[in-house]
Amino acid sequence: MFLFEKKMFVVGIDIGGTFIKIGVFQADNLQLVQKFVLNTTQFKTFESLALEVQEILIHYQDLQGIGIGAPNGNYFDGTIKFAPNLSWQGQIPVVQIFRKFFTNAHIVLNNDANAAALGEMLFGKAKGLKHFMQITLGTGVGGGIIVNGKLLYGFDGNAGEIGHTIYEPDGRQCNCGKKGCLEMYASARGLVMTTKELLMIRKTPSMLKNLPEIDAFVISTAAANGDPIALEAFEITAKILAKQLSDCAAILAPSKIFVSGGLSKAGTVLFEPLNKYFQHFLLSIHKNIISIEQSGLPDDNAGILGAVALVVKK
Amino acid sequence: MFLFEKKMFVVGIDIGGTFIKIGVFQADNLQLVQKFVLNTTQFKTFESLALEVQEILIHYQDLQGIGIGAPNGNYFDGTIKFAPNLSWQGQIPVVQIFRKFFTNAHIVLNNDANAAALGEMLFGKAKGLKHFMQITLGTGVGGGIIVNGKLLYGFDGNAGEIGHTIYEPDGRQCNCGKKGCLEMYASARGLVMTTKELLMIRKTPSMLKNLPEIDAFVISTAAANGDPIALEAFEITAKILAKQLSDCAAILAPSKIFVSGGLSKAGTVLFEPLNKYFQHFLLSIHKNIISIEQSGLPDDNAGILGAVALVVKK
Repeated sequence: MFLFEKKMFVVGIDIGGTFIKIGVFQADNLQLVQKFVLNTTQFKTFESLALEVQEILIHYQDLQGIGIGAPNGNYFDGTIKFAPNLSWQGQIPVVQIFRKFFTNAHIVLNNDANAAALGEMLFGKAKGLKHFMQITLGTGVGGGIIVNGKLLYGFDGNAGEIGHTIYEPDGRQCNCGKKGCLEMYASARGLVMTTKELLMIRKTPSMLKNLPEIDAFVISTAAANGDPIALEAFEITAKILAKQLSDCAAILAPSKIFVSGGLSKAGTVLFEPLNKYFQHFLLSIHKNIISIEQSGLPDDNAGILGAVALVVKK
Repeated sequence: MFLFEKKMFVVGIDIGGTFIKIGVFQADNLQLVQKFVLNTTQFKTFESLALEVQEILIHYQDLQGIGIGAPNGNYFDGTIKFAPNLSWQGQIPVVQIFRKFFTNAHIVLNNDANAAALGEMLFGKAKGLKHFMQITLGTGVGGGIIVNGKLLYGFDGNAGEIGHTIYEPDGRQCNCGKKGCLEMYASARGLVMTTKELLMIRKTPSMLKNLPEIDAFVISTAAANGDPIALEAFEITAKILAKQLSDCAAILAPSKIFVSGGLSKAGTVLFEPLNKYFQHFLLSIHKNIISIEQSGLPDDNAGILGAVALVVKK
């Protein structure tokens, strides 16, 4: 009883290519107590990051658990095998390294999309849902699948790779080595590529034509302001994503699909065409029954809420 | 104890568009005791079929269970909602009707692909596997998905509809109302359509050119004899199926994919290009690890073995 009372805090760590966010939560009611943001690139090694986290959390003795969400994080072996968007090379034994610095805490690693799915179930719109999908649209496209109220891992922990389903065989070259992966069309990068292609072939006037460089945020803003090229780029992106998600719906029969990540903040310009095409591509038994919704997690804390959900017991 | 000893038999019923196969098995060792084959079209109503089954099984008192595999059979509500390849119209309350005729038996309905997956696990090559997929290639294309050793149903019992994932948006019109479904390319019907298209556009000599009508069996035989058009049709069919199955692999991470059903009997002319393209389309982490194999269930009894697996307790 004494031991339990001491372990009053749980931690969620969201590792991204640019920032590492650390949230400390009260274990009993899951209220966020404190939050830290670090620059990913300042850490030359993963050990130096773990050391920094130990120093930051020095006042929180005897943590109950630490959940870590990271691109390509593997729950089964506790390592990040190969993450193109992180600077650390090779296979990183994340859980093993953290165990050295936090000897008494329960430490769990998972990929960011799986963490987001658990976060959606604990804090967001998926409370009580037994079958749903979480899609993260950011630099890449990730997927977390909940079946019978639990994450679907597959035989090796690598299930949910919706971003690497193939939209177009022999299409755009993906970082993963394959061609035509969904990720190359429906991620922030994919949206930018599609927009640049449109800017070259369309004669339509567009506020994007005068810019030296464009990114997903600029395209979203332009689309929200009615720019025809930006709107067309979102229409194309949404149609491609809708087609792949309708395949997931046929395979998995999820009751809902939630979308989180940077690109999901585009709002209506994404979700309106996305749901239109999704309904079009769905099986008749699922039309107007399965829907795609924006994640219910607050933008700023979505990552740490997902990460902490990894170590919360129901 | 006495009651249990009396219930010595379990029954598997495989309902197809042409034949209904009924297998009686010993409950203790699952040995096939007797088998019956009926013509599907001779039964104007489903009640008349249930009555016939009752008469056939009159000597097997107090059956332990009856498993029924049928196209579009829904495990959740025990009905066949809409099966384009069966002559009975509307929604058929299969379990409810069978309960009237077999008051003491445990009766379970499921779709044929789910039954095949359970059959593969109990009698075939999937013994001990926790994550795998079963694909049935026949008049249609069905899928049964095993996750953590159990069938994946989704929120409404309709998961596994790999045949209705979309290979080509705006492609061939499918019976389900959608366009470009995998079923229209990788089923026996799909193979025939592809072959007919090739026969029209290719000048290559082919033994198929002189035939008044062709079916999947004729094409398989021609391919096995080296006919270039038949081989090309299998190559195209295999590539399409491989692409869709690689998407399933990215989503589900199954350790294996088994293929059963009429078209799977084509053997090497199907499986050789199928595995070649499948490995090509797989994520690098899965290459040469996940494979596609012919089902281990004996052709003639695959349906009844799957059906009886529905009522066998582990």
